[in-house]
Amino acid sequence: MKKLSALITTALVLGLSTVAAAQTPAEGVIKYRQSVYTVIGYHFGGIMVPMVRGEKPYDKEAFARAAGVVAQMAPLAHEGFTPGSDTGTDKFPTKAKPEIWTKQADFKAKMDKMNAETSKLAQMSRTASFDDLKKQFGATGATCKACHDDYRNK
Amino acid sequence: MKKLSALITTALVLGLSTVAAAQTPAEGVIKYRQSVYTVIGYHFGGIMVPMVRGEKPYDKEAFARAAGVVAQMAPLAHEGFTPGSDTGTDKFPTKAKPEIWTKQADFKAKMDKMNAETSKLAQMSRTASFDDLKKQFGATGATCKACHDDYRNK
Repeated sequence: MKKLSALITTALVLGLSTVAAAQTPAEGVIKYRQSVYTVIGYHFGGIMVPMVRGEKPYDKEAFARAAGVVAQMAPLAHEGFTPGSDTGTDKFPTKAKPEIWTKQADFKAKMDKMNAETSKLAQMSRTASFDDLKKQFGATGATCKACHDDYRNK
Repeated sequence: MKKLSALITTALVLGLSTVAAAQTPAEGVIKYRQSVYTVIGYHFGGIMVPMVRGEKPYDKEAFARAAGVVAQMAPLAHEGFTPGSDTGTDKFPTKAKPEIWTKQADFKAKMDKMNAETSKLAQMSRTASFDDLKKQFGATGATCKACHDDYRNK
């Protein structure tokens, strides 16, 4: 029991339960899903977009790493749309549309499509030409846009 | 050029550059690193801690998946501490201590230790007993705490 107490103390010291207690479960999940997209956006928009646009030179290693991060992050988004997390709060507003929860099969299909295209981009990033990568980047971005169009408020 | 224009349009429609423009680079990186920790905390604190505490029954599959997510997220944190992102803004406050940037070798060593222990936890989670997992969970939490103690304001 001494060891378990030590573990609990560690968790408490880490402030994990404090954080959880300061938010409702729905707020926690809203913050979680937005964080997943922030990490995706940092690598997709921050690292890859400037190369695709020609604003920065193509750096194969950096592009491939970013593509890998995006592919590993994408599957984490779906679990962030739990029942009851459709309406935000003043502190944790959300742009998620209610249709996410009323058209779950279509929403999941669009999420799965994002996962498939981000995986393909990550796989290609190690071997494909930059021209082919740019095409796949466009196909990947289109899966983001498809979901944003239908399921995200402006 | 038509295809490249389409790609740029896609990026613009996604709002990626808009988001970037609304923040300074330092704010973007502060938001990024906090998002990495939010995703880690969701899985470490939200999924694993209740099992370790015995508040929820041990679910091997769920524990292992959370451990895997934490292990894949941990190496993303370090790049979020870029030069110039030491002071936050009203909109993007940070608890990061200035020592992160003045004691970079020690900070990186502590980050590396977190990466090593989270990897070990993820590897063990598929095969080890729950008792052994709890010990490794404590060792992993200790690496979080070590960094928080030295490099994070309350």
